[in-house]
Amino acid sequence: MQQSEKALLRAARKEDVPAIVAMLADDHLGATREGDPGDERYLAAFERIDANPYDELIVAEQDGEVVGTMQLTYLAGLSRLGAERCQIEAVRVAAAARGQGLGGRMIAWAVDRARERGCAIVQLTSDKSRTDAHRFYDNLGFTASHEGYKLSLS
Amino acid sequence: MQQSEKALLRAARKEDVPAIVAMLADDHLGATREGDPGDERYLAAFERIDANPYDELIVAEQDGEVVGTMQLTYLAGLSRLGAERCQIEAVRVAAAARGQGLGGRMIAWAVDRARERGCAIVQLTSDKSRTDAHRFYDNLGFTASHEGYKLSLS
Repeated sequence: MQQSEKALLRAARKEDVPAIVAMLADDHLGATREGDPGDERYLAAFERIDANPYDELIVAEQDGEVVGTMQLTYLAGLSRLGAERCQIEAVRVAAAARGQGLGGRMIAWAVDRARERGCAIVQLTSDKSRTDAHRFYDNLGFTASHEGYKLSLS
Repeated sequence: MQQSEKALLRAARKEDVPAIVAMLADDHLGATREGDPGDERYLAAFERIDANPYDELIVAEQDGEVVGTMQLTYLAGLSRLGAERCQIEAVRVAAAARGQGLGGRMIAWAVDRARERGCAIVQLTSDKSRTDAHRFYDNLGFTASHEGYKLSLS
């Protein structure tokens, strides 16, 4: 059995927030933009996500440790006969848990969940510098059909 | 004064739904995936958007006609100190109202609105076949920094 098969995927709890923030920061892009994992703004964002029925912050727990995270948002829209879309953001696997197939299991789990809900599409964007992630999403059946535009306001 | 400056940007109402769907369908990509503008699934999606405080479906009205639309969603997340992001989806300008600067005015309006709300980022994806749209977003200051991945479930 692969290590990753032992991981439990579940909704994040308030006490998981510091571990999630640590994973967001442990990254060549995230390192420059995150702060103290105890910063109250992280908790406020968690409360907002937790209270929203269309948002799910997920963690992967293995041997009592949080080793992965992703956020799922179910977007409404009129397009495609009013179909719901599942958007995946902020996918991270802890450094110590990489190379065990956990990321692939997380995304497959998200896709299954979106399908059960009746979503027409699963979508995500990935920074163009994350070439390893691109192979990963290509292998999972995703198509890089769109340009992902960002405008920073800060 | 440009024609587009006369357009009023406002929240969509239920009675605008058929005009919005007509704009979604009048497009080389949308033509194959939309249905009867009176289909009740469009109204159900409208009600879901209208009831969600983090979703805004906007229309541009000119001389009593709906001539543009876009959807803004304010996404929560832990990244970047729990910053909110504004995501723009389903941007369309009616064929008869194109070439008057309306699309640029709509996006600038959305960016101002996101900034007032304190969003850290405005983001959107655009199909790689929409090369005119790419020039448009580049000119508005957006950066195509990400790959936009989609997985169709239908």
